[in-house]
Amino acid sequence: MMLNLVLTESALETIPKEICREKAITRRAKKTGKHPLEMLLDRSYHHRAMLRLEAAERRGRPDIVHFSLLAALGTPLNRAGNLRTYVHTIEDKTIYVNPEVRLPRNCQRFSGLIEQLYKKGKVPKVGPSLLRLNQRRPLKALLEEIAPSYTIAFSRRGTSMPLHEAGRLLASFPVTAVLIGGFPTGHLSKESMMLADEVISIDSEMLDAWTVVARIIYEYEKSIGIARTHVHTTGNRVQSGESD
Amino acid sequence: MMLNLVLTESALETIPKEICREKAITRRAKKTGKHPLEMLLDRSYHHRAMLRLEAAERRGRPDIVHFSLLAALGTPLNRAGNLRTYVHTIEDKTIYVNPEVRLPRNCQRFSGLIEQLYKKGKVPKVGPSLLRLNQRRPLKALLEEIAPSYTIAFSRRGTSMPLHEAGRLLASFPVTAVLIGGFPTGHLSKESMMLADEVISIDSEMLDAWTVVARIIYEYEKSIGIARTHVHTTGNRVQSGESD
Repeated sequence: MMLNLVLTESALETIPKEICREKAITRRAKKTGKHPLEMLLDRSYHHRAMLRLEAAERRGRPDIVHFSLLAALGTPLNRAGNLRTYVHTIEDKTIYVNPEVRLPRNCQRFSGLIEQLYKKGKVPKVGPSLLRLNQRRPLKALLEEIAPSYTIAFSRRGTSMPLHEAGRLLASFPVTAVLIGGFPTGHLSKESMMLADEVISIDSEMLDAWTVVARIIYEYEKSIGIARTHVHTTGNRVQSGESD
Repeated sequence: MMLNLVLTESALETIPKEICREKAITRRAKKTGKHPLEMLLDRSYHHRAMLRLEAAERRGRPDIVHFSLLAALGTPLNRAGNLRTYVHTIEDKTIYVNPEVRLPRNCQRFSGLIEQLYKKGKVPKVGPSLLRLNQRRPLKALLEEIAPSYTIAFSRRGTSMPLHEAGRLLASFPVTAVLIGGFPTGHLSKESMMLADEVISIDSEMLDAWTVVARIIYEYEKSIGIARTHVHTTGNRVQSGESD
């Protein structure tokens, strides 16, 4: 059983040329000793400079990718080897995430790692890659490569379906994929939605990407029985009020 | 229905006196223009300086608090007004989190906010507080204040119980509390466990605090019917292959 999690149209990119001469950016580049074009675009630091960018509200949010990956990689599903995680970006780049990577918890370190990845194409430089970048891998090509029997995209524009039903549906195929928007606002593009077999809505309000990630992985675990195995192999009873 | 989430014995504190003269710390203080004793202890920056600290492996992880709060505050449960969130720390300080706070997504900004909170006792300085600090609020006193009818603590040392049962159990009382360790390794202290009506284990391996937070909130939502309400109030059908 393999669930392929694709963070889709993720708000992850390096500083685009059109704003690389903005003061806030050159100042930060100087401070960090990096070339502006090698730095990640980040609304926390570049809010003002981003005002000139097209579709700025969907860009420059490495934190969404960071938290969503942390939410996915620490799950029993991932530890059991039944999860593959990918970051597809707004520029149609794709990051292949090794399930065994232990990502930095600090957001600056995470951004530094992604900057290194964008520069070198993989990290670490030697040995098996923990993160690998494909500079031009549109979602369609990525899904052809994964070849899931069934793909569900999450969008408020989709059909209402409770998450546990989605989990069960996914668990009825050996290889499946879920598309979860890795951006702060708006909707998955039509092109992305068309690549899914089903587009479902799990809440009337927008949910953070990491919340959707956490919930669908959990429901999938329950459907394929991972949670059950784990919980039943453990446990010495400790009553409240116990003493040594 | 009110679920009170208490991140317990959280690895959050300012730089302790015994290491405030370490080079790495004075250097960083200079760089940021802060007094060393007003900076948050953070393993990402102070790893080496922390080697001299007692129980260092359980300290200096603001990221755990940050991610766990983000996992909690964005949930439908919190939006519906059925969640109260508290951070109890390793030093027996307690942070009261206003359910409506929108925390910074950037980890440095989050740490800056907590540093301000530790200095001023509340943030923002004027108006209703979004975060409020009680300098001396042991877990026992906090729970007396919350007065839950039932409290569940999560620990691998507890009784095995599937999460959905825990959710149902919590939903059978009007006011309940969950204690989730806000530290990277080890177990809840005996003192904390003794304050719970039940100590349960939901996985044989250690889970990240934010994973436990996400899962128990989700199961509680399902038990009190929030997920259902939300999912059924929405949704225009969009089939894959749809065109405009």
